[in-house]
Amino acid sequence: MNEYEQIRYELDDGVLTVTLHRPDRLNAFTVTMADELISAFDHADNDDDVRAVVLTGAGRGFCAGADLGSGATTFDYEDGAAHRDDGGRVSLRILDSMKPVIVAFNGPAVGIGVTMTLAADIRLASADARFGFVFARRGIVLEAASSWFLPRLVGISQALEWAATGRVFDAEEACRGGLVRSVHPPEELLPAAYALAREIADNTAPVSVALNRQMLWRMLAADHPMTAHMLDSRVMQSRGASPDAKEGVTAFLEKRPARFPDRVSADMPRFYPWWPARPFQPWGS
Amino acid sequence: MNEYEQIRYELDDGVLTVTLHRPDRLNAFTVTMADELISAFDHADNDDDVRAVVLTGAGRGFCAGADLGSGATTFDYEDGAAHRDDGGRVSLRILDSMKPVIVAFNGPAVGIGVTMTLAADIRLASADARFGFVFARRGIVLEAASSWFLPRLVGISQALEWAATGRVFDAEEACRGGLVRSVHPPEELLPAAYALAREIADNTAPVSVALNRQMLWRMLAADHPMTAHMLDSRVMQSRGASPDAKEGVTAFLEKRPARFPDRVSADMPRFYPWWPARPFQPWGS
Amino acid sequence: MNEYEQIRYELDDGVLTVTLHRPDRLNAFTVTMADELISAFDHADNDDDVRAVVLTGAGRGFCAGADLGSGATTFDYEDGAAHRDDGGRVSLRILDSMKPVIVAFNGPAVGIGVTMTLAADIRLASADARFGFVFARRGIVLEAASSWFLPRLVGISQALEWAATGRVFDAEEACRGGLVRSVHPPEELLPAAYALAREIADNTAPVSVALNRQMLWRMLAADHPMTAHMLDSRVMQSRGASPDAKEGVTAFLEKRPARFPDRVSADMPRFYPWWPARPFQPWGS
Repeated sequence: MNEYEQIRYELDDGVLTVTLHRPDRLNAFTVTMADELISAFDHADNDDDVRAVVLTGAGRGFCAGADLGSGATTFDYEDGAAHRDDGGRVSLRILDSMKPVIVAFNGPAVGIGVTMTLAADIRLASADARFGFVFARRGIVLEAASSWFLPRLVGISQALEWAATGRVFDAEEACRGGLVRSVHPPEELLPAAYALAREIADNTAPVSVALNRQMLWRMLAADHPMTAHMLDSRVMQSRGASPDAKEGVTAFLEKRPARFPDRVSADMPRFYPWWPARPFQPWGS
Repeated sequence: MNEYEQIRYELDDGVLTVTLHRPDRLNAFTVTMADELISAFDHADNDDDVRAVVLTGAGRGFCAGADLGSGATTFDYEDGAAHRDDGGRVSLRILDSMKPVIVAFNGPAVGIGVTMTLAADIRLASADARFGFVFARRGIVLEAASSWFLPRLVGISQALEWAATGRVFDAEEACRGGLVRSVHPPEELLPAAYALAREIADNTAPVSVALNRQMLWRMLAADHPMTAHMLDSRVMQSRGASPDAKEGVTAFLEKRPARFPDRVSADMPRFYPWWPARPFQPWGS
Repeated sequence: MNEYEQIRYELDDGVLTVTLHRPDRLNAFTVTMADELISAFDHADNDDDVRAVVLTGAGRGFCAGADLGSGATTFDYEDGAAHRDDGGRVSLRILDSMKPVIVAFNGPAVGIGVTMTLAADIRLASADARFGFVFARRGIVLEAASSWFLPRLVGISQALEWAATGRVFDAEEACRGGLVRSVHPPEELLPAAYALAREIADNTAPVSVALNRQMLWRMLAADHPMTAHMLDSRVMQSRGASPDAKEGVTAFLEKRPARFPDRVSADMPRFYPWWPARPFQPWGS
């Protein structure tokens, strides 16, 4: 993975760290960065040694937002109606991740710098972090599918307030509002993120984690709990008969750590993914 | 109701207490318990003397999860694709309840012990309670339709964290996360639950309570508020002309307690239930 | 706007104040008040000088609920199946607002007095405010499409508890439950509301604010984030090329306040609104 230019990809004992790496630009977002992030999540899904992903930024920022190097024409896309938002490509890739994703906001996360993280599982912030859904202050709008994700994370009223004011706010306001789960002194941020990653990597069955993650996101969009009941009956029937379940119950009864044999690369139920593909189409077409 | 083996069913002055009753097994969940719970909610709906339900556990636990007496084969169901999850049968029965359901977690509630309560109205915990969505630590997955209910109760990020870690956590974490509304010293738990039940039983119209409950759950799954507007216009038209409404307004104007004449058994609007049946079908069929 | 009887409409430096104005009746809600509120929001949308709306009540109450001057027959509507709830007419009009709406609860807000505000962006309360979803205590039910809005604002469990008990509760409980974002000493309520309105009016692009508002509400009801991705790709393509975006980025790079040229009356994307009309129809027809 050393060919990446704008991110770092480092795997250590089951935990993958993906670092936004343009520290001289506060890790400002580019199309290259989007492509590399998507590639990194592809690699992570295909590597059974990756049990959890920590996403953070190099230097004093997390991500300052879109790179404004093109000035006034930054958002003047040329490809007309077929334009596809790069932040949304990243968000939807994280949504599909089979590994849980923990975001450690080490510093400012503004615009796309925060919206691209909304499909992650867990967000933590350094006390130095700052956040802003600043789009209305730049004459643009919520992107990266954040109009779908943000109200589901923080509630519709908090989402409306942050979007309408475009305010830049601190980590405490982010935590009160539900955007991050906890705030840490700067030097304790990554240890806290890695502790969560270890809690997952050391205790759980990878196939179960991948399935739970997708069941939660997909059923958040389902119109009736009967759909979840039908689905989880099928998944429980499948996983309940698995080597993982036998080991999980046996280890519990023997009061010892479980060693789960099944692998995401080989042992997902054959009906996974169970949802129809949602291809991108130009709006209105 | 004295024929139940694994639960207790006790009605006192409008408030039904349903007690999970296998105290020597920390009230571990069985198919019999599921069937008896469903029967109990059927009885409660058909008995106008039941104005609210309190669900709790006997002894020092609430429900330790699935009974693991079958060891490694506990979740190895034999009936193939037609398998229907027992926890989901309970959750969906509670969803359909016409009486509000208050859960008093007197002790540990783990796995199905907590997921089967997510369709209840209100959850309270003793300071002694413990919780865990431990499925990923057993090699299985979220069940009882909890992938639909949990993110709607506690938010998607909290749900993802609890599901990915499989962590067992205390009542304070449950309260911070929104899984329970309040934490009480053990001896004050049931009094607090009964105070809520009395607040409902002593002040409200039974038909209104049943309708509000179903409107909230069903409109949580509706795609547009216009659906709610169309529905509540119809329900208000129906209930606004009812003896209950005349009594409710008159009592309010006379500054006296209302005595609502209408009964759930006889006076629900004739278009109730207004939703199409959602029969269980094996997934993919 | 001076022809209104039951509300006041006052525009000052970009901020419109709409005041419920039947102070001798605690601003009890009437059909006239509903019609005037709808008219006021129509005017606000069509007036580019309105950047934000503050909704409050005259005197010591916000809105005591439906005017019960007709006594026991208050809710006995005559027009049969075609009855359309007046509170819902107001809620859905606020939903469609192109200007952000800030509600300042200066005193009691009960029944329709609170449900008609649930489609607003931001709610603040005086410490003197009281709230109640008292419908079950009057023999009626949740209206104003509140069965759709309320669980999305405060979570399904809090909504169920307030609806089942019909309890009147204070501003602190409203804030803990998420119904209002903050509680203020009475004399500081309106200044706090106006500070939020100014934060929007002084810093943001009107077209961006209108679009963000509708994207958040509409995507809250969308079943998949791909819909948001398809939509925001299109909107970003449109707004990214706008004079607003060029000014927003340039002003940011020049570290000066932006002066956004685009206007809601003229410069919304031509595919706005992008959703199909949802005409009211009598339920079941």
